[in-house]
Amino acid sequence: MPDLIRSWVETANAPQSPFPLNNLPYGVFSAGDSPRCAVAIGNSVLDLGALQSAGVLPEHGFASPALNTFMGKGKKVWTDVRQKLTELLREGNKTQAVADALHDMSSVTTHLPFTVTEYTDFYAGRQHAFNVGSLFRDPKNALPPNWLHMPIGYNGRASTVVVSGTDFHRPMGQLKGPQDDTPRFGPSKRLDIELEMGAVVGTPSEMGQRISVDQADDMIFGYVLLNDWSARDIQAWEYQPLGPFQAKAFATTIGAWVVTKAALDPFRCDTPPREHDLLRHIKDTGPMLYDIDLSVTMAAPDGEATEICRTNYNTLYYSAAQQLAHHASSGCAMRTGDLLGSGTISGPEKGMFGSLLEMTWGGRDVITLDDGQTRTFIEDGDTLTLNGHAQGDGYRIGFGPCTGTILPARRAKDGRS
Amino acid sequence: MPDLIRSWVETANAPQSPFPLNNLPYGVFSAGDSPRCAVAIGNSVLDLGALQSAGVLPEHGFASPALNTFMGKGKKVWTDVRQKLTELLREGNKTQAVADALHDMSSVTTHLPFTVTEYTDFYAGRQHAFNVGSLFRDPKNALPPNWLHMPIGYNGRASTVVVSGTDFHRPMGQLKGPQDDTPRFGPSKRLDIELEMGAVVGTPSEMGQRISVDQADDMIFGYVLLNDWSARDIQAWEYQPLGPFQAKAFATTIGAWVVTKAALDPFRCDTPPREHDLLRHIKDTGPMLYDIDLSVTMAAPDGEATEICRTNYNTLYYSAAQQLAHHASSGCAMRTGDLLGSGTISGPEKGMFGSLLEMTWGGRDVITLDDGQTRTFIEDGDTLTLNGHAQGDGYRIGFGPCTGTILPARRAKDGRS
Repeated sequence: MPDLIRSWVETANAPQSPFPLNNLPYGVFSAGDSPRCAVAIGNSVLDLGALQSAGVLPEHGFASPALNTFMGKGKKVWTDVRQKLTELLREGNKTQAVADALHDMSSVTTHLPFTVTEYTDFYAGRQHAFNVGSLFRDPKNALPPNWLHMPIGYNGRASTVVVSGTDFHRPMGQLKGPQDDTPRFGPSKRLDIELEMGAVVGTPSEMGQRISVDQADDMIFGYVLLNDWSARDIQAWEYQPLGPFQAKAFATTIGAWVVTKAALDPFRCDTPPREHDLLRHIKDTGPMLYDIDLSVTMAAPDGEATEICRTNYNTLYYSAAQQLAHHASSGCAMRTGDLLGSGTISGPEKGMFGSLLEMTWGGRDVITLDDGQTRTFIEDGDTLTLNGHAQGDGYRIGFGPCTGTILPARRAKDGRS
Repeated sequence: MPDLIRSWVETANAPQSPFPLNNLPYGVFSAGDSPRCAVAIGNSVLDLGALQSAGVLPEHGFASPALNTFMGKGKKVWTDVRQKLTELLREGNKTQAVADALHDMSSVTTHLPFTVTEYTDFYAGRQHAFNVGSLFRDPKNALPPNWLHMPIGYNGRASTVVVSGTDFHRPMGQLKGPQDDTPRFGPSKRLDIELEMGAVVGTPSEMGQRISVDQADDMIFGYVLLNDWSARDIQAWEYQPLGPFQAKAFATTIGAWVVTKAALDPFRCDTPPREHDLLRHIKDTGPMLYDIDLSVTMAAPDGEATEICRTNYNTLYYSAAQQLAHHASSGCAMRTGDLLGSGTISGPEKGMFGSLLEMTWGGRDVITLDDGQTRTFIEDGDTLTLNGHAQGDGYRIGFGPCTGTILPARRAKDGRS
């Protein structure tokens, strides 16, 4: 485990800071002007567009409102820029040019850090797959027969991936309970979260190109927190036979900061023992997961945030590199900006479940918040927040919050629900 | 039914021409230089980039290698440009500027006509859903319970949508037959087509925005032929519980020419009688389908193309406008360049089935080509071609071919399959 790298940005040296110099996550910010690329350092953001204009950094598209140009340049460039930024910010190396490019984080707006090209959501948490299989299908055959042989996933919707802090309306949809004769159209009553992490593809692959697990790992630029909001009642009625569609299409929230693979590297850990040997195109080639503490808080309107889940990224069965290798295995081209959701990260015990569906066991049990209010699913005005960090020796590699508040369902212009 | 509008481009007046002046489909072409936008007219393409540079047409992004800018401008602009082009090409109106912008179609290269933002594939053919339900699941409950209540669809993969004429490698994937103990990784043995049409979204909608069926119809710019190539063996093993993924991700072919809604308007026809009333957000508001003859040919390497299917777009249960309204119903933002596959278009009889899976009833029966060769699924070197047109009075609104040839599976660099 490397030591803290001390910075002349003093707030970056605090043990609880999510953004020490060891982290340097990338994002996009604005301060009443045009959005451009940045890294987070302590309580500040460092304007990479300004450093590029000043000739301190080479041209990597940092003045643009998305990280895609930089992400597409690949591992060598990512390493070079990280080394350069580490030197610029290291204790004792303060210069006026860099100091002038710092903005107080509380004074800026963060934006979606990259243009999401396509969004794929996997299903790589074994406890989650077992729980959902038990609730939606048959507890005796909860885990689908293919699940232990390959990372199951589906294509999600990129147009509604939003940055942390973006509020949105409760989704509408077709609903039909088991007792109803016919479906009706109305607001979802079983609105849920899914605690996930997203892997962000940097280097692209071509249509028809085969990629190994190690090549896939090299293609990944970094990771974000990801909440795959889900309308369970829409999902239950629509998802057979072709999978989730409108139940997941209304919003997916990601954190504002992409934590690089380089920052997470000291926290690599093994995937679990394999019940069946994995086929060669997705076989583990070393420690492929990360030890990242994850938690979820829920707050009623004007209420206190209550922690309702605490788990770890290391409980997954498949790593992002294995998912990406599988994704490309048929010949599917992968592109810079593709976002791969891990699947819901539920640990083996109840306090470690990453969705309300699991926490309340399909709405049977209630969650009691610290202020005494109870919940099964999300009510209007509730705020749900994911947090995550890897714990170093006296410092943390944090992700920043991934949060959203639910607004009431939007009625049609003619007033109909 | 309107009459043929005669053009001074003589080849456009032939009764069998797919591209009379009544059609004017949009595409992207190059002639050894940079790709730019065009319309097809008779045996020629008309360079809209050149007409824009010459000031004959206003600035609508026609010099760019994709129609997206123009498609995003909406119905009023589409109508104005169509009227202008009709006048420029009408018999008696020949000018040198326009004549100079014509290229012989056989001398140019056609490209993907628009940047595919996201790709969604529906499942709106009742006979196809019944056939596939019978083959993959239970013949007694072939049609899923939700099917008659809403257009079932799933998100496909946009990165591998290619233009007609793009050959590609047989996909690899995890395969496990019912008799196999464990899966293996290898080339698909059950490679198939799906005869579809794609609706192309022009005008976008916002996240959270509710859109009516009529608004959805106004958002559609036009239609293309679409072949949703499918690996049935990969699909059978992977698709439960989250839907098709790698089985469809390796290639989707669309025709080079986007036929506008204006050109198809005289061929509108009714959706079928409804077994259950549709809910208001997707209810028919008038004739929503089109009378478009569709066919598929198959050719073995060096063999003759044999027609293996003839059907009609009017056999679908849900129109593209209903699919689009449903797609946006949860709050999902729709964007310029979104492509909506209709689902496989299988008519009620065997010669009208739009996939080999259905034609051979899961590989049980063989297809005999005109040259005596037999097929169940696609073999290496085979060429599959979709064709389609609406039949006017003495003219046709054609789509141009949608074709592809299958290359052998690509081996990994180390020689493994």
